[in-house]
Amino acid sequence: MIEDLEGAAVGTRVPLDDLLDGLRFDAQGLLPAIAQQHDTGVVLMLAWMNRAAIRETLATGQVCYFSRSRQTLWRKGESSGQIQRLVELRVDCDGDTLLLQVEQTGPACHTGRHNCFYTRADGDEAEVFLPVVIDPSSLYGPKA
Amino acid sequence: MIEDLEGAAVGTRVPLDDLLDGLRFDAQGLLPAIAQQHDTGVVLMLAWMNRAAIRETLATGQVCYFSRSRQTLWRKGESSGQIQRLVELRVDCDGDTLLLQVEQTGPACHTGRHNCFYTRADGDEAEVFLPVVIDPSSLYGPKA
Repeated sequence: MIEDLEGAAVGTRVPLDDLLDGLRFDAQGLLPAIAQQHDTGVVLMLAWMNRAAIRETLATGQVCYFSRSRQTLWRKGESSGQIQRLVELRVDCDGDTLLLQVEQTGPACHTGRHNCFYTRADGDEAEVFLPVVIDPSSLYGPKA
Repeated sequence: MIEDLEGAAVGTRVPLDDLLDGLRFDAQGLLPAIAQQHDTGVVLMLAWMNRAAIRETLATGQVCYFSRSRQTLWRKGESSGQIQRLVELRVDCDGDTLLLQVEQTGPACHTGRHNCFYTRADGDEAEVFLPVVIDPSSLYGPKA
């Protein structure tokens, strides 16, 4: 199915179920999902989705990932309030990566920064370049 | 090392080697790397990097991935000419994803489209919304 679309003209449409059935999940049943703020283009984070997370996200319009550490569905923002509303879900050419256009409420990162990519390589050093804008303890409570 | 930067102020600098040594590769020794066109913010593709690919990319300024299908370093554009010049390499908060700001030459996708995310969910259908701008056979030769 995915490969059938490689040469397809703009406007070609197929049943969504067929596309989703053709996704190439990894051995753990997961796909990487990139979340991008839809209006600014800023890449917020990368997390993982299984089939159920994709279905729930499409059904509710609120982004749900699969937490690899907790091995359960992770409704982004459930405890922090930092929810992501789905604007558009895109699939890549070989069906093994998702790109989510989202409307992010508050900072996306658990550190309280706008997004998770706040450290960059600069010569033989690495530099933090995004500020903490919300104290994480106000999102999750103080660390035990 | 990565966790040490969670609350770090803007401008905090650490040796790059320490950051890279703290990256959390998966069981195959790989990390997902998102390639984003640096000036437009368009997400071009997601591919994978091992330690050697990261080192080569930083050393040469030309993006080198690790091909999971061929199990070898993949110098993006080597056969197609669709190279990616590295503008900036960023690491996420938990050190298991890279975000590459790149200058893409030509279309990024092997289908001859601008980027790999050319199919989107639209209700109960999926739609192709990006045109093929270069005949892939002109990049890779006709399919056998």
